Amino acid sequence: MRAASGASAAGSSAKSGVEGSASDRRGIDPFHRPIMMPPMGQNLRIPGPTPIPMAVREAQSAPMIDHRGTEFAAMLREITTGIGSLIGTEQADVLLLTGSGSGAMEAAIVNTLSPGDRVLVVTIGAFGDRFAKIASAFGADVTRFEANWGAAADPAALAEHLASAKPYRAVLLTHNETSTGVANPLRELAAAVHAAPGDPLVVVDGISGLGAIEFEMDAWGIDLVVSASQKAWMGSPGIAIAVVGPRAWAAAEAARMPRAYWDFAEARRWAEKGQTPWTPAVSVLFGLQLGVRLLRDEGRERTWARHAAIAAGAQAGLEALGLTLVAAPQDRSHTVTAAWLPDGLEWGPFNAAMRGKGLIVAGGQAAWTGKIMRFGHMGDVGIGEMADAVRVMGETLAEFGHGADAAEADRATREAFEQAMAVAVP
Amino acid sequence: MRAASGASAAGSSAKSGVEGSASDRRGIDPFHRPIMMPPMGQNLRIPGPTPIPMAVREAQSAPMIDHRGTEFAAMLREITTGIGSLIGTEQADVLLLTGSGSGAMEAAIVNTLSPGDRVLVVTIGAFGDRFAKIASAFGADVTRFEANWGAAADPAALAEHLASAKPYRAVLLTHNETSTGVANPLRELAAAVHAAPGDPLVVVDGISGLGAIEFEMDAWGIDLVVSASQKAWMGSPGIAIAVVGPRAWAAAEAARMPRAYWDFAEARRWAEKGQTPWTPAVSVLFGLQLGVRLLRDEGRERTWARHAAIAAGAQAGLEALGLTLVAAPQDRSHTVTAAWLPDGLEWGPFNAAMRGKGLIVAGGQAAWTGKIMRFGHMGDVGIGEMADAVRVMGETLAEFGHGADAAEADRATREAFEQAMAVAVP
Repeated sequence: MRAASGASAAGSSAKSGVEGSASDRRGIDPFHRPIMMPPMGQNLRIPGPTPIPMAVREAQSAPMIDHRGTEFAAMLREITTGIGSLIGTEQADVLLLTGSGSGAMEAAIVNTLSPGDRVLVVTIGAFGDRFAKIASAFGADVTRFEANWGAAADPAALAEHLASAKPYRAVLLTHNETSTGVANPLRELAAAVHAAPGDPLVVVDGISGLGAIEFEMDAWGIDLVVSASQKAWMGSPGIAIAVVGPRAWAAAEAARMPRAYWDFAEARRWAEKGQTPWTPAVSVLFGLQLGVRLLRDEGRERTWARHAAIAAGAQAGLEALGLTLVAAPQDRSHTVTAAWLPDGLEWGPFNAAMRGKGLIVAGGQAAWTGKIMRFGHMGDVGIGEMADAVRVMGETLAEFGHGADAAEADRATREAFEQAMAVAVP
Repeated sequence: MRAASGASAAGSSAKSGVEGSASDRRGIDPFHRPIMMPPMGQNLRIPGPTPIPMAVREAQSAPMIDHRGTEFAAMLREITTGIGSLIGTEQADVLLLTGSGSGAMEAAIVNTLSPGDRVLVVTIGAFGDRFAKIASAFGADVTRFEANWGAAADPAALAEHLASAKPYRAVLLTHNETSTGVANPLRELAAAVHAAPGDPLVVVDGISGLGAIEFEMDAWGIDLVVSASQKAWMGSPGIAIAVVGPRAWAAAEAARMPRAYWDFAEARRWAEKGQTPWTPAVSVLFGLQLGVRLLRDEGRERTWARHAAIAAGAQAGLEALGLTLVAAPQDRSHTVTAAWLPDGLEWGPFNAAMRGKGLIVAGGQAAWTGKIMRFGHMGDVGIGEMADAVRVMGETLAEFGHGADAAEADRATREAFEQAMAVAVP
């Protein structure tokens, strides 16, 4: 019986004498069956979860703490303060919710809207569609404003629509559309919304862009933005981030969609004492704390420049492989690059071959399943990983009869990166 | 610039050559500011999050993987199969949702009910009250069936109420009430519900009991039960567990409460291919996988016996300190023990003194704040940790003028444990 081993070892000092846990002492090897772990050296290039720095991984293995104690409160305050400063807000509250990014999208909707509210969802891909679907599920009166997949939304067209439409209560926007590798001109879109009749609330899915791409919450008039720990923040998934500005708080007071777990007011009330209403993902926060520190150490302009330069490298490398990128140059994301699968190349076997070499990329979503492939390059990434991904993909393309000069593409990736960095950080 | 360091290190083998991440290579010490970590040897005796075994902590530091890849699918299947067998179900689906236990409570409600549905909430404490509050927030017509705090619900009284009341769509029950240290006679309560007019759905908050206390989902006719990774399962918080039986699935088809993130049907659809609809807390699952393995290795009857014996030890030890336990003997929980704070002892300074010695216990909740103290003893716990907690509390009581023989209480804790184990495992 495992627990009996400590039964005769009565401590005697006033200091709590527990060393190691019951299972550590009982002499059973918990690893006697193999754990499913990735092989060493896997190059995880999906658009999240992203590879996490060794320091973050180590932090995640720290002993558990009381989520209502002083250590936790200090950690919560450091993370929320750090995120706030990195996204340019002094007036919004950063709330850390235990959940996926999609949970934060739901939270953004149910805290600011009432059933029947007119909502415009600007959708340019699968995640914009998800925003619309959630809003509809909770009874919003949803109008969709669409761009073709692979393109960004046009601020002038949005302004025109808003000027002629009945006023909306809120406009839901995507900062960076993960399904197509497109970044929206968020500043201009937000300005168009604020100029519209009724000055609708500006609610942003910033999940795959925040932290990595320029974002100025207060200056751009973003009322509410959500993100998630496993993207540019370099943590593991499990913490959803909601940043709530004054106009969103005012909307929350009037909002009548049902909510309990995701209730922002409850989260703010507990955050004031350094806690969360419900037991949070403590170990994920251990890691996120370090991820945010790493970003603050780097400095946000340098982080943005690094992501822009790696994106330039990815684009150059993939084009050197003869691939066609999904997005037009001005619409391309700095965190996700999508390319069309060459004619006649079947995604399943091609993807399996790349995975066999340790390269993990993502395929297309929804209507684009089997048609495109997507590379994530956000968070803890350097040009080395990206060039390696391009090279391995090039070698695999060649094996599948789509001749490509992998070494040349590797070189093009690095060169475009260096050129972009030279301009950004002269 | 951090990422530039790898720029000239072009790989050349066909195998992906990434070793270590960009931040590992850049030579910055991420620990240059202190991290808030608990001191070594802290005895975390709150009712969750619980201390996690070293093997679980190590697993949480594994490299990130693709949540839509084969390694993840194998892990998901192992965890869900393991949990199902440990709680006695062959017919229910085990769903792993990223969130806190309270999120799983919300999920249980919104997936099985429609606004206006008559729901009986059997509440014996703060977590029963939470169940009622969530159901009301989503528009259920809630009737409360209460026991006094500190007591269990009476199956005969419940049967009597159900026989005379208009039929309910569902009855919400608490397996183990964390706020008072009381376990409900769940088997008998469930039987009373099934005998009632309309055969209401039996929905159980099993968060702080499941895995540690006897529970037979299929045999007892439990339609839906929820739990959370950080309780008896020995993981970190962040994964909510929902186990959904056939009658709950049927209810879900008719249920009209709005839902998106918590939608069970969506979770089941993705689980069939070894995935989750939204990005899950992968690192928490790494740990939970090991926690479930440890429980399977121990065997559920032995796990239940260990928890019962440690509870007996805790009760004996606290009574030896002269404390009065909250619950009557037949109602006492095997995972949480609550005792009244002695007259004239102020909780704040007393708690601070215990924390100064590394002993972390919980105070009272809601109306019982400052009146009781609660010890968690679930998951990775042996009698050594519990006896140590009793001894440190005894020494602190003495310092506060509430004379107690700490060494004798330590001995009584161990003796009661040994006696209980001798009966359970002769």
